[in-house]
Amino acid sequence: MIHFCVLGTAAGGAPTLERAPAAVVVRIEGEVFLFDCGEGTQRQLIRAGISRRKLGLIAITHLHGDHVLGLVPLLASMSSDRRREPLLVIGPPGLGELVWTTLRLIDVQLSFELEVRELAPKTAGTVLETGRWTLRYAAVEHTVPSFSFRLEERRPPVFDMERVRALGLRPGRLLGELKRHGEVTLPDGRVVRLHEVAHHQPQPSLVYCGDTQPCDADIELARGADVLLHEATFSEEHGELARRTLHSTAADAATVAAQAGVGELLLLHFSTRYDTLEPLLYEARRIFPRTRLARELRWEAIPTPREVVESPSLGTA
Amino acid sequence: MIHFCVLGTAAGGAPTLERAPAAVVVRIEGEVFLFDCGEGTQRQLIRAGISRRKLGLIAITHLHGDHVLGLVPLLASMSSDRRREPLLVIGPPGLGELVWTTLRLIDVQLSFELEVRELAPKTAGTVLETGRWTLRYAAVEHTVPSFSFRLEERRPPVFDMERVRALGLRPGRLLGELKRHGEVTLPDGRVVRLHEVAHHQPQPSLVYCGDTQPCDADIELARGADVLLHEATFSEEHGELARRTLHSTAADAATVAAQAGVGELLLLHFSTRYDTLEPLLYEARRIFPRTRLARELRWEAIPTPREVVESPSLGTA
Repeated sequence: MIHFCVLGTAAGGAPTLERAPAAVVVRIEGEVFLFDCGEGTQRQLIRAGISRRKLGLIAITHLHGDHVLGLVPLLASMSSDRRREPLLVIGPPGLGELVWTTLRLIDVQLSFELEVRELAPKTAGTVLETGRWTLRYAAVEHTVPSFSFRLEERRPPVFDMERVRALGLRPGRLLGELKRHGEVTLPDGRVVRLHEVAHHQPQPSLVYCGDTQPCDADIELARGADVLLHEATFSEEHGELARRTLHSTAADAATVAAQAGVGELLLLHFSTRYDTLEPLLYEARRIFPRTRLARELRWEAIPTPREVVESPSLGTA
Repeated sequence: MIHFCVLGTAAGGAPTLERAPAAVVVRIEGEVFLFDCGEGTQRQLIRAGISRRKLGLIAITHLHGDHVLGLVPLLASMSSDRRREPLLVIGPPGLGELVWTTLRLIDVQLSFELEVRELAPKTAGTVLETGRWTLRYAAVEHTVPSFSFRLEERRPPVFDMERVRALGLRPGRLLGELKRHGEVTLPDGRVVRLHEVAHHQPQPSLVYCGDTQPCDADIELARGADVLLHEATFSEEHGELARRTLHSTAADAATVAAQAGVGELLLLHFSTRYDTLEPLLYEARRIFPRTRLARELRWEAIPTPREVVESPSLGTA
């Protein structure tokens, strides 16, 4: 199960009292990731009730101030905590210079091993992959190199235990082989394929899109995701400004969501010119009805608890 | 009159929900200054009800993260505001590299003229001087080059109008000359000196001390100040740690206040290890009774309103 909490929904360097700059914290299988880290993110982490000690990876979409200027303060605090666990920070070219120059000038020698990995512009790929989840990225289109991220859980197939028993398979080595290799040969020579006795569980997935104009890479990365967190800096009223600054309007985000066939769209990264956000919400819903405004500091789960398939015995097709 | 508002009282890079990192905003004669600029200062400015547009000068005591990492986000926001007025930022060596490198990497071309003036380590002097106030600085003693700042109002002398009339002086040119030159020659050849017909008003003054161990420069800069805002990172319980990290304890701050003969001491910059600050307050009061804990987001005036001498007619000795 993926849990996430939006820490900030403001666009631009100037936060308001109501909205903090960009950051989303995500939990999966005991791992905690941070997507973007605007100024004040470490305080928002405290408010979200999650210890910065647990962060194992920070992914920065792009080097605009409202997405990255909380990073060095957070690293400095981790060092004050005398953190020992290594940390991976990924993001666009220039991130390393920003981090290491600032740390040198503010006289911080980190207490832990920090790897700053810069993603090549105009590429897509896998950041990390375990047996249980995958974190991928894709370059999107903004005024500076910018990336979106997709976290996908890998759930094991659910066996139909009646069919398993009918075939004479017992839990243990043969089932393990079947899971790993997709097929197994029984002692009597018969070959059993995975799809004959099991079905795939849904693979919960979350896509976070920092700043971009709507583009193919944006849609491809979001394809079929359960939740798409997408910037909606402007409404169509300021569509010309959105086009000029390579941002998305609420309608753009909804169009991406519709074309990608996502489960749900959460809008965020709102220009501070909007006091009320309902117009952006309604603009998006006309195109993609399953749209909500992201709310700061509210934890959510994918799938939502009622959809969770916890026990294989419940998974019979 | 000097107005000031402490925006943050936390020490160290890791803020708490209760305390923000170092920053103090000061108003004098229509000018607004900021002393230090920890992460999140721009949000604290909003809470303090003061527009960042009004800031004319930002003075950074030293380059530790909790004193400076809110600066570039603030500059970026000023630029988003399309500020046109020039801005002066002063602070220790390295401040320019921090500002310009970060602005380049986050792709901000400022909309206004920014001067970053680096103060030479181990020096003292005047930053700015007008006819109505003076801003001075002095190097203090910390693990990195660190400065304290003193803002002093220059109030015109208050004339004893009875004596002025008795000497046959009339308001106008001769009084103006007397103010400017300290003496004036009357048409009948008599020389009148300023102190014969006027007395000096108190010169309200505020001293802000970022991080330092107690030292002579610290005391000299604070000499006779109305209000001394002084770091008190630790209590004497952690005196050894204070000595090792070149910080002050509450007792140290109180000793400086007593030796400098200040009007009032306000403690700030508290280690996050202290949940309650009363022990630090009582420790200081045993040495210097006129001590308070600085409170965030509370505006105060020097002199306090009841002490203000607004009209020369009230100023008769």
